Amino acid sequence: MRTVTYGGAVSLDLFLAGAAGEIDWLHFSKDVQKEMAVFWKEVDVILMGRKTYGVAEGMAGSDETKEVEAALEKKSRKKKEPKLRTYVFSRTLKAIDKPGVELVKGDAAAFVRDLKQRRGGRICLMGGGELAQSLIADGLVDEVGLNIHPILLGTGVPVFRDPGHRVAFTLTGCRQMDGGCVLVKYALRR
Amino acid sequence: MRTVTYGGAVSLDLFLAGAAGEIDWLHFSKDVQKEMAVFWKEVDVILMGRKTYGVAEGMAGSDETKEVEAALEKKSRKKKEPKLRTYVFSRTLKAIDKPGVELVKGDAAAFVRDLKQRRGGRICLMGGGELAQSLIADGLVDEVGLNIHPILLGTGVPVFRDPGHRVAFTLTGCRQMDGGCVLVKYALRR
Repeated sequence: MRTVTYGGAVSLDLFLAGAAGEIDWLHFSKDVQKEMAVFWKEVDVILMGRKTYGVAEGMAGSDETKEVEAALEKKSRKKKEPKLRTYVFSRTLKAIDKPGVELVKGDAAAFVRDLKQRRGGRICLMGGGELAQSLIADGLVDEVGLNIHPILLGTGVPVFRDPGHRVAFTLTGCRQMDGGCVLVKYALRR
Repeated sequence: MRTVTYGGAVSLDLFLAGAAGEIDWLHFSKDVQKEMAVFWKEVDVILMGRKTYGVAEGMAGSDETKEVEAALEKKSRKKKEPKLRTYVFSRTLKAIDKPGVELVKGDAAAFVRDLKQRRGGRICLMGGGELAQSLIADGLVDEVGLNIHPILLGTGVPVFRDPGHRVAFTLTGCRQMDGGCVLVKYALRR
C-alpha cells in the first residue's frame, strides 16, 4: 500500500510559517536539498487543502519552491517516472483549471483511503494542518517528517492541530542538519 | 553568570502534560535518569509559577519525582554541594510554609536578573509555560532542553507560549534516546 507522508520545515514551536505566512526564517541548505531530492523522487501525488493551495500558488517561482520545481521538471523529463498529480481538497472552490491539479470536493478520508490502495508512488501531504489534522485523526498518515529550526516564532501556521485523540509514532530517523536544524522522522504506530 | 535552563519531557506536539495533567505517556528510561542526574547535580535553584508548584506538590512521591527526590536527597547529604532552593512566583499566593521554598510576589524578571548575577549553580526553570513565556521573552532563559516523545497528545500544557517576538537559538545537542525519544538542547542566541 502507498504511504502518505506529512511534515515539513518547522520552527521550534512547530509552526510551518509565521502568522502572515513568513518563511524568511527557513534555512535552505544543501543538506535540505539532498533530503528533498531523495524524497521527491518517489512522490507522484501531492495532497493539500484549499488554503495551502492558495499559498502554494502564491509561492510559485519563489526561492523556496524553485528547488522543488526544478526537481519535478527534471523528473517529468524522464519517461520512466510517473507524472506528479496534485489533489486539492475543498468544499468551497468551484473548479481548478490547471494541468495536473484536480479538485476533490467529497470526503477526504474516503478519497485518500481509496488512493492508497491504488498502484503508485509515495503520497505527500502538504499544508497548514487542517487537512492533515483530519487525515492524522483517521490514521491515514503513515509518516511524519519534521525539520525543526532553532527559532521560536510565537505564532503562525501550526503543523499539528488537535486530532481529538492520542496518536503514537515510532521514531525512524533523527539527525542534526546544517544550520542547527534537527531532522526527525516517524512512522505511525498501528 | 549563572544559566537558566528550561524544558522537560514533551510530546511531539510539545505538551508537557495532557489537558488533565496526564503524564502516563512519559517514557522513563535509564537513559533519561542518567541525563537528569548529570543535570540536577549542578542545579541549586528551581524557579516555578504557582500552577506548577501546585502540580509539583501533588506529584510529590509519584514515580516520576522519586528519581529527582532521591538524587536531591543524596545530594543534600554531601556537605560540599549547596542545598536546593525553590522560588515560587505568584501574585495571588499569600504565603508558602515549606523549608527551602520561598514565595516571590514581585517582578519575576527583575528577581531572576538579580539571581543570575549572584554566585551559585545552575538555575532550573520548571513548569507549564506562563512564567517561562515571560522569562523567554525577556531573554532570561539561556538554555532549552526538550526530550521529545513520539506521541501526539492533541491538547495539554504547552511548553512554549507566544513570547511576542521571535527568539533564536543555537543547537548545542541532539541525540536519539531510548523509546524513540529525541533529546535536543539549545542555547539562546544573543
